[in-house]
Amino acid sequence: MASIFTKIVQGEIPCYKIAEDDRFIAFLDIRPLQWGHTLVVPKREVDYLFDLSPKEVGDLFIFAQRVAQAIKKAIPCNRVGVAVLGLEVPHAHIHLVPLNKENDINFSTSRCTLTQWEFVHISELIINAFHS
Amino acid sequence: MASIFTKIVQGEIPCYKIAEDDRFIAFLDIRPLQWGHTLVVPKREVDYLFDLSPKEVGDLFIFAQRVAQAIKKAIPCNRVGVAVLGLEVPHAHIHLVPLNKENDINFSTSRCTLTQWEFVHISELIINAFHS
Repeated sequence: MASIFTKIVQGEIPCYKIAEDDRFIAFLDIRPLQWGHTLVVPKREVDYLFDLSPKEVGDLFIFAQRVAQAIKKAIPCNRVGVAVLGLEVPHAHIHLVPLNKENDINFSTSRCTLTQWEFVHISELIINAFHS
Repeated sequence: MASIFTKIVQGEIPCYKIAEDDRFIAFLDIRPLQWGHTLVVPKREVDYLFDLSPKEVGDLFIFAQRVAQAIKKAIPCNRVGVAVLGLEVPHAHIHLVPLNKENDINFSTSRCTLTQWEFVHISELIINAFHS
């Protein structure tokens, strides 16, 4: 069965999309640790990040860098942190999380609850920064 | 002043080295979250990961992939998790942490206390896997 991220890639499940190219897609995490928390996903469905080819790993993080730079422009933060855990959804994904302190990327803390309009607003801010 | 990681790169401070090439180095974190917790560092001293050039970011993660594959061979775990926080040491570094459950990469939990011989043993296991 296709992963939830493959369903997002195929447009079967909606997302707050930030950017995509032929191989990668970035969209807002709908259970964000912080405002602007974004997932970067290879469209090819592979469970474990490091089972991607070296070229895919390198290019995925180069794509994630562009997204992280847009997040940092759009969302007030010290920097954008990175996490790859991968124990929940069996489709490799990078978490990009705006950080002001180390605990801002602690996955055992509670998630933010945002309205649809807040998600739309945040995604527009990051999309504009991505294209600026 | 040179960062603590630059001092490690220059051999002024010892480390339990796993691998290096002309641009990157990997060594055991001496305050590990889990046995086998390894840091991957660009030798060029840049504070923020995403201030590296795209090529450096891509190649750094390709190097990290090789190290992660060795850790997974050497240390019993489900997979190797990735984290980049960067608020403590102003020299970009990737944490690679063997994971069995999500909380294994929670930086607010206590660190392992290992003897020198345990560090040597772990590093030898990972080095052997890196070259196998």
